Amino acid sequence: MKRNLLLTPGPTQIPPEICAALGRPIIHHRTPQFQENLKEAVEGLKQVFQTKNDVYLLTCSGTGAMEASVCNLLSPGDKAITVEGGKFGERWSELCRSYGVEPHVIQVPWGKAVDPAQIKKILDAHKDIKAVFITQSETSTGVTTDVEAAARVVRDTGAVLVVDAISGLGIIDLQMDNWGVDVVVSAGHKGFMLPPGLAFISLSPKAFKLVETCESPRYYFDLRKSKEAMADIDTPFTPAIGIVIALNESLRRMKQEGLPNLFASYARLAKGTREAAKALGLSIFTDESCQSNVLTAIKLPPEVDGNKVVKIMRDTHGISVAGGQDSLKGKIIRIAHMGCVDEYDILTGISCLEKVLLKLGYKFTLGSGVAAAQKVFNT
Amino acid sequence: MKRNLLLTPGPTQIPPEICAALGRPIIHHRTPQFQENLKEAVEGLKQVFQTKNDVYLLTCSGTGAMEASVCNLLSPGDKAITVEGGKFGERWSELCRSYGVEPHVIQVPWGKAVDPAQIKKILDAHKDIKAVFITQSETSTGVTTDVEAAARVVRDTGAVLVVDAISGLGIIDLQMDNWGVDVVVSAGHKGFMLPPGLAFISLSPKAFKLVETCESPRYYFDLRKSKEAMADIDTPFTPAIGIVIALNESLRRMKQEGLPNLFASYARLAKGTREAAKALGLSIFTDESCQSNVLTAIKLPPEVDGNKVVKIMRDTHGISVAGGQDSLKGKIIRIAHMGCVDEYDILTGISCLEKVLLKLGYKFTLGSGVAAAQKVFNT
Repeated sequence: MKRNLLLTPGPTQIPPEICAALGRPIIHHRTPQFQENLKEAVEGLKQVFQTKNDVYLLTCSGTGAMEASVCNLLSPGDKAITVEGGKFGERWSELCRSYGVEPHVIQVPWGKAVDPAQIKKILDAHKDIKAVFITQSETSTGVTTDVEAAARVVRDTGAVLVVDAISGLGIIDLQMDNWGVDVVVSAGHKGFMLPPGLAFISLSPKAFKLVETCESPRYYFDLRKSKEAMADIDTPFTPAIGIVIALNESLRRMKQEGLPNLFASYARLAKGTREAAKALGLSIFTDESCQSNVLTAIKLPPEVDGNKVVKIMRDTHGISVAGGQDSLKGKIIRIAHMGCVDEYDILTGISCLEKVLLKLGYKFTLGSGVAAAQKVFNT
Repeated sequence: MKRNLLLTPGPTQIPPEICAALGRPIIHHRTPQFQENLKEAVEGLKQVFQTKNDVYLLTCSGTGAMEASVCNLLSPGDKAITVEGGKFGERWSELCRSYGVEPHVIQVPWGKAVDPAQIKKILDAHKDIKAVFITQSETSTGVTTDVEAAARVVRDTGAVLVVDAISGLGIIDLQMDNWGVDVVVSAGHKGFMLPPGLAFISLSPKAFKLVETCESPRYYFDLRKSKEAMADIDTPFTPAIGIVIALNESLRRMKQEGLPNLFASYARLAKGTREAAKALGLSIFTDESCQSNVLTAIKLPPEVDGNKVVKIMRDTHGISVAGGQDSLKGKIIRIAHMGCVDEYDILTGISCLEKVLLKLGYKFTLGSGVAAAQKVFNT
C-alpha cells in the first residue's frame, strides 16, 4: 500500500479529476465539439500567460516548444544571447547552435541568477542581436530569474525576449504583456498538472514579425501554420486531444483559485520547505536572492549520498523527489512544489526525508523539519 | 443518449481498458518503473513493425515523425523521390521542400497507386537519389501502396525507402525487415487505438548511416539523441508517459489477437463496407487494384452532398465518418475500419448511412447495405 507521491519537477501529481478527464472516451478533433474545447483552452491559457496574444498548443514536450521559438525566430548566422546557469539555460545555447546561431553566452554560476545589466551590456555592444533567451525557473538549480527586470533591458531594443517558463508558469508571476515579454514557452506537465505531451507558446506582434521572415527550416513547429489554423480555431496537425480536454479541467481549477492566490500558496510551500531544510541543519543550494518558489534545491552534507536519498524515498517509501544533475549529482535533492501539491504533501515529503536521513546516519532532531514547515504553514 | 462512435481515420475508438489506463495516476519517467514500461513498449512495437531494429518513440503527431525522417536523412540540396497521390503523399513533398530538397515528384491520380516501375525509372536515371518517400495507406483516397514491390526496386540501390505507415501499421501487413524497408513511421492514434500524441519511427542500419552524416538542423527530432537514450532505455526528452503506459495495453491486445488475425479481420471489415456501399448503389472511389483495408472511400451521387452526410451522421446520430478533402470535398465519405472497430460497429455505421441517405432523398432499398455487409461477415 505504498504511496505514489510526486514531488518532482515535472511530471507533477495529476489531480484525480484530471485523471478522470484523461480516461474519457475520445472525440474527433475536426468537430464543433472539439473546437469548443480548444477555444476554451486558448482563452484560459491567455489568462495564465497574462497576455492578449494567442497561445498556440503544440503536441510535444517543453523542449519542442523551445525549439519552435528558436527555429521560428532565428535564421542561420543570426545573433542571440543565452544565459547558462543550469541545464535548461544550456539547452537554449544547444538549440541556437543546432540552427546555425552561435550565441553570446552569459555564464552564471549554478545557483545564482543572471544580472540584467549583463544582458544590457551585450545588447548595447551588439545592436544586431535578434533574441535573448532566458529561463524563468531553472529547474536544475532552483533559481528564479527576474523576468520583469530582464524585459526592462530588452523591450526597447531591436531584440525579442524569449522566456522558458516551462516549469514556472502558473506558479510564479509572469506578466507577459505588462512586462513586455515577447515569447513565453510553457508545457502542461508542470504547473498545469497534466501528463507530458502538450506544450504552449505565445508571441508578441514584435516576435511574430521575425517568424514571417525567418529562414530556418521547419514544418511541424512552423508557427505560421499555427497562426493560420488558430484563425479557424484549429491546429495544423492532429493535437493531443485527450490532454487538451484535460487541460480545461486544470484551467478551471486554476481560475477558481485565481493566479494571485496560486502564487501566494506556492510561495508558502516553498518557504515551508526551505525552513524545514534549515531546521534539519541542511542549507539551500540556491543563492538567497533568487530562490525559486517552484522547487527547492537542498544541499546535502558530504557524508550523505543524495542519489541514495532519492532512491530510498522513491523505491522504499513511494515518495519521489529529484536528485542533482551533472556536477550536482549526489550533492543536492530537489523538492518540487508545483501543480496540485499542498502543505500536507510537503509535510509528507519532509517526514520521509527525515526518515531516510535517520536511516543514513545523519544527525539531527527527528521532527524538527516537519515542525519548521508546520510553523510556516500556520502563521 | 447519443452514441459516440468514431469510424474516422484517426483518432480511432479507444477501447475502455485503454481509457482506464490513461486515467491512472502518473509515474515519473526517470524511474525503474517507467523503464520497464518503455522496454515492454519497444519490444512490442518491434513485433508490430516486424523488425529487429529499435523503434523510437517521439512525443508528437504522425507528421512530427515524418519530419524526423526527412530532417535526419536529407541535407539541403539532396535528391529524393516523393509520390503524390493524395494529401499525405503531398506532405512528403512539402517536408522535403522545407529542408531544401526539391523532390522528383511522381504524380499519381487520386484513387490510384504508384507503379513501382516509375520509381525504378527515376532511380535508374538519378543514381544520387538518397531517399524514396511513399505512403502505405493514403488516408485521403483509400489507396494502399504495394510497399513490398516498392522495396524490391529500392533496396538494392543507394537510396533508402521511407514509408509513412501512420494509418496502416497493425492493420495491413508491412514486413519491415523481410521486405527491406529502411524507415517506417507510424503513430499511436490509428491502429494502436491510443489518443494522439505519440509517434514511432524505426530505421535500418543503412538509413541510420544517413542520420549520422545528415546536416539538416534538428534537436527535438534528432534521432542520434533517440539512439543514445535508447541504449539506457530512456528517451531524450520527457515522453508522453501516460500514452506510453496505455500503449502497452494496446500492444497486449494486438499480441493476443496476432498480426495475421488482425490483418484478416480488417480485410473482412473492409470487404463488408465495400459490399454495403455497392448494394446501396454507390461506388468505391478507390481503384479496385489498390483498395485499402484501412478505410473505404465511397463516392456519392451528385445529388447527395457528402458534407451533409458527415454532419448529420455525426451531429444528429453521434456516428463520425470522414468527408472528402480538397477536390473531393462533398463528393466522398470515408469510413475507417481501424483500431478496435468490429463488424457490429460497421453495421451500425452502414445503418446510420442508410438513415441519412433516406432523409436526403436518395433512392435505394432500405436495409440492403447492412444485409450485404452481414453477408460478408457471415461467410
